[in-house]
Amino acid sequence: MPPSDPGPRAIAHVDCALFRLPLDEVLTDAKHGDHTHFEVVTATVTLADGSTGTGYTYTGGKGGQAILAMLRHDLAPFLLGKDATEVEALYDAMQWHVHYVARGGIASFAISALDIALWDLRCKAACQPLWQVAGGAADRCRAYAGGIDLNFPLPKLLDSIRGYLARGHNGVKIKIGQPDLADDIARIRAVRELIGPDIAFAVDANYGMSVEQAITAAKAFEPFDLLWFEEPTIPDDYKGYGRIAEATGMPLAMGENLHTIHEFEYAFADAKLSFIQPDASNCGGITGWLQVAKLAKEHGIPVCSHGMQELHVSLMASQPHAGWMEVHSFPIDRYTTRPLVIEDHMAVAPPEPGTGVTFDWDKMRAHHEEA
Amino acid sequence: MPPSDPGPRAIAHVDCALFRLPLDEVLTDAKHGDHTHFEVVTATVTLADGSTGTGYTYTGGKGGQAILAMLRHDLAPFLLGKDATEVEALYDAMQWHVHYVARGGIASFAISALDIALWDLRCKAACQPLWQVAGGAADRCRAYAGGIDLNFPLPKLLDSIRGYLARGHNGVKIKIGQPDLADDIARIRAVRELIGPDIAFAVDANYGMSVEQAITAAKAFEPFDLLWFEEPTIPDDYKGYGRIAEATGMPLAMGENLHTIHEFEYAFADAKLSFIQPDASNCGGITGWLQVAKLAKEHGIPVCSHGMQELHVSLMASQPHAGWMEVHSFPIDRYTTRPLVIEDHMAVAPPEPGTGVTFDWDKMRAHHEEA
Ligand SMILES: [Mg+2]
Ligand SMILES: [Mg+2]
Repeated sequence: MPPSDPGPRAIAHVDCALFRLPLDEVLTDAKHGDHTHFEVVTATVTLADGSTGTGYTYTGGKGGQAILAMLRHDLAPFLLGKDATEVEALYDAMQWHVHYVARGGIASFAISALDIALWDLRCKAACQPLWQVAGGAADRCRAYAGGIDLNFPLPKLLDSIRGYLARGHNGVKIKIGQPDLADDIARIRAVRELIGPDIAFAVDANYGMSVEQAITAAKAFEPFDLLWFEEPTIPDDYKGYGRIAEATGMPLAMGENLHTIHEFEYAFADAKLSFIQPDASNCGGITGWLQVAKLAKEHGIPVCSHGMQELHVSLMASQPHAGWMEVHSFPIDRYTTRPLVIEDHMAVAPPEPGTGVTFDWDKMRAHHEEA
Repeated sequence: MPPSDPGPRAIAHVDCALFRLPLDEVLTDAKHGDHTHFEVVTATVTLADGSTGTGYTYTGGKGGQAILAMLRHDLAPFLLGKDATEVEALYDAMQWHVHYVARGGIASFAISALDIALWDLRCKAACQPLWQVAGGAADRCRAYAGGIDLNFPLPKLLDSIRGYLARGHNGVKIKIGQPDLADDIARIRAVRELIGPDIAFAVDANYGMSVEQAITAAKAFEPFDLLWFEEPTIPDDYKGYGRIAEATGMPLAMGENLHTIHEFEYAFADAKLSFIQPDASNCGGITGWLQVAKLAKEHGIPVCSHGMQELHVSLMASQPHAGWMEVHSFPIDRYTTRPLVIEDHMAVAPPEPGTGVTFDWDKMRAHHEEA
């Protein structure tokens, strides 16, 4: 695939680094337990002509070292000398290069970081922002705010919702999965009463329920006009999602835990979703996210996103069938040069060439982890 | 789950190491390209009472550093202080601990190594060999030999088959996926003529074909009385396997690339397999392998294995519905104290307490890789 002398766009260096960024407080959801940090693994690709692109991926605090190891030992050496303009071909080649230990998992996170770096280079070379290169439908998208708030007492939960509205959001999401379903219902009722009927409102169980529990819960949630019920059960049980949707009519959403295009194909075929939520940090970067967006269009389903709003804002804006972008509570805005921009409830994509995500390396450095 | 003072069976240390073991020659298959080395990542668990168990996993030469990193940074610290006798509960807990970056991939390999170490401890504590503790059906199993021989010229291929027979095997397997199907057919015909009608004979395409190509190939292979056609197409396309089986009646086998119990569930539901081939080094260790074996029994399908014959011999022997064990060509026997034993065509499980796999650490040391 790569010519023997690809010229000025040949990949000359790949520099990878791991950062362990603290959360302000311990955050809890139904299945991942306590979060104290999140991890960002960055990959900066330098070409023979000196141009650079930066990509990255996230974890919830575990796996960062494994991602870094795969980048440094398996994927970066593989890319050296190859033509950086062949983004999609390099994506396929990376998937096959590590296939035996991949088909998802750590490899999907590592490939995502490199793919985003290649897209950053592509957009800079085209002197265009990502939202234009990725599709160009618009420069902004709908955006809701959500937090890892399962263990927040109700007054704190409502305060946090007030904060979302104050920041300009017209959509909100809370975690559910209290030991007693009645407590989930009481929290949902209180939030709906606070926000009124015109604010979009979703809930997220982080697959803490069985299919039967989710059917019971979805029926109980019916009065509250939810935008969607996210990850009611384990992401692997596509047909179980289908049973929940059929039994209740509740709109379902998932995708943040699907890491290969094949997993998304099964979700589209069997899960009867109303929204799909790929995450470019774990489903193969921008190439992987756009593959899912294309499948979503074919299935008539709005494409949404999980986390990574500083990048997804451009991808979501680019797609004519975009649904709602999640604005996640990890404080990434402290570590980049452009905090998320909300205008008239819409999240606005960065206008500059490239992904528009620029890290403040001085602030990152304090949280650097050695391999 | 773990009591606050779990006592003498508490996990006190986990020592992990990576070894990069050379192959005698460059080996090639249809999708993984050239192999020059294989990797073994070991995990030795020491309990408070001083007893030790060793587990391990394999790669085809990539991903070892990522596995080592996940073991050292995420999974070993998680196990410290926990009760080693709770093998199945620890298996589930490890899966959830890294779930966000897992659901297969590198995490499945890392968890496999630790789970095998815990089973080694379990068997030693019971003073029983693995074949007894894992099921006890028998102490031996059928075993065929196969090589990564796609690029062997025909005379060399036939020599290698003669070598399998000389070592006592009554089953053989070759790689297929030549650019021209006629060449695959010629090689299959030549092997069948060499071995006669009574030797079991399988072929393995390493998912190098489309569903349509595989259907054409399977029809062309019909005269040669194949035991199975392994991985004709990508492991993700369960329904595609089902189409090949329906269109041709050819017995199909796969499993070496499935890393979670959910992937196996989809394979059993949709792929119309005649044989399933889980690999304890990548599907969750002995706990993961036995889960697949149980599903196979429920579906009336013989359980087989991929690679790792020094360990799988005990697992295969233990199961009443065992099919054929693969004897892989990676030269692992040079690095353990007990080369595979074949008696009357059957592979014999080690009789000593534990997994019966003991590394010759002096020989391994020369190939040790730093993190
Ligand atoms: Mg979610
Ligand atoms: Mg195979």
